[in-house]
Amino acid sequence: MSKLGEEPIPSEVPEDHPRAHSLKIRHRITDGLDKKIVAKAGLIAHGRGEAFDYLIGEITTEPAKEAIEAACSALLLAKHPIISVNGNVAALTPHEIVELSNVSEAKLEINLFYRTKEREDALEKALRVAGAKEILGVGLKKIEIHDLSSKRRIIDPEGIAKADVVLVPLEDGDRTEALKRAGKKVIAIDLNPLSRTAQHADITIVDNLVRCIPLMKDEIIKLKSKSKKDLELILKKFDNKHNLSSMIELIGTRFLDLAKKGINIPGIKEL
Amino acid sequence: MSKLGEEPIPSEVPEDHPRAHSLKIRHRITDGLDKKIVAKAGLIAHGRGEAFDYLIGEITTEPAKEAIEAACSALLLAKHPIISVNGNVAALTPHEIVELSNVSEAKLEINLFYRTKEREDALEKALRVAGAKEILGVGLKKIEIHDLSSKRRIIDPEGIAKADVVLVPLEDGDRTEALKRAGKKVIAIDLNPLSRTAQHADITIVDNLVRCIPLMKDEIIKLKSKSKKDLELILKKFDNKHNLSSMIELIGTRFLDLAKKGINIPGIKEL
Repeated sequence: MSKLGEEPIPSEVPEDHPRAHSLKIRHRITDGLDKKIVAKAGLIAHGRGEAFDYLIGEITTEPAKEAIEAACSALLLAKHPIISVNGNVAALTPHEIVELSNVSEAKLEINLFYRTKEREDALEKALRVAGAKEILGVGLKKIEIHDLSSKRRIIDPEGIAKADVVLVPLEDGDRTEALKRAGKKVIAIDLNPLSRTAQHADITIVDNLVRCIPLMKDEIIKLKSKSKKDLELILKKFDNKHNLSSMIELIGTRFLDLAKKGINIPGIKEL
Repeated sequence: MSKLGEEPIPSEVPEDHPRAHSLKIRHRITDGLDKKIVAKAGLIAHGRGEAFDYLIGEITTEPAKEAIEAACSALLLAKHPIISVNGNVAALTPHEIVELSNVSEAKLEINLFYRTKEREDALEKALRVAGAKEILGVGLKKIEIHDLSSKRRIIDPEGIAKADVVLVPLEDGDRTEALKRAGKKVIAIDLNPLSRTAQHADITIVDNLVRCIPLMKDEIIKLKSKSKKDLELILKKFDNKHNLSSMIELIGTRFLDLAKKGINIPGIKEL
């Protein structure tokens, strides 16, 4: 039992707390800060994510499922797919991201905005503990993405540098645009359908990383039985702008419903 | 100039950065964590606030202005008004909250969910530096609010314990409900119109603390010239449920507009 005044540990979050699940996930982020996996800015970014997830009802919506199918098709069709891993991803879904890497044969590359040797090591350790065999982006000869400041420009010659498809969960707008300028097909996971990342990615999955990554693993396994032509057809049918508009419309409609019905209706969880 | 990889300091945030203002305010929170004023959970809460502020357009809306007028009337009509100060409030608006306290004659009381002597001292110092003469809730004989766990239940006999009106900026639902059970009139500042705090407070101002507190100071000065009867009339006319519904409708409508017009329209800042 932690002393009053200390941040609670998950086992102390009562199961019947209306925000129990969210609080347990939140602990992975605060714990990640203590382990130097997560940056301070990562905690604030997580809070933004919590708010947007709450707005979409904390469920994986139909548009998100369509985006997941398209994203997994793109990963399977890629010659050299890479999954970019930052601090929040390593803190929230270490095992899940390793499993997705294994089934999709997309290698993991650590890429940090606030890159220090300490954080590099902390992320590498977290991924190793989660079962990662090969991790790119650490302790290697580095090259740069041009016109991008911050250490995110440091990429692995064997990874993002030669990738055709890059999955960037929880990425910021500057880097997403830089990856586009470098000619990559970008798949983003972003709970804010209005963000630059969401708007500039080729495929944007508006969903919570914690729900999304396991669903992507299942989808990859399912799609592996399909032909190249079938996968190309799925990609051809997917329209990212339309998908994002559907998400925005879904959030807006949910809000207007609440204004009409009043707030204290079943199923609405407070934040 | 901070080294690449370190969190930026405000002077390094380019003025033309689309999120420059938000990034400068964000730094007050991360700086507050370093100074032990802010808890880790406070960074996540700030992120949620950023997201909701972004949804309402990062402006003080008309419903918020009405709530501010009602809140200031309630503070002026109160026999014993108290302003409850937590870590994020002390980090974001130390000078502004002291000024509001001075013009409204509502005393400041430090109340912390994660209360440690270290944080108590850090908040007291921050408020003293900001010019606070009297600070309640620290180093005093304490009493408790019943049926509330965590050290938030510790309140000052000279402060919240005998207050008739309590302003709780950035408060959580449990404490807001406890204050209501204790018979207090609660004024909340909360960017999430769906939160338990927003729903249970008597007057909810859905606005960013950084914009709201200075506006409240000006409003108090303006309302001081009014008669008791005029202030009571302002309070009587204010309907919190209706005000909250207006805010929720405003957010929903803004979203549906974006879905129709497409995202890349002027005035929309990316997060």
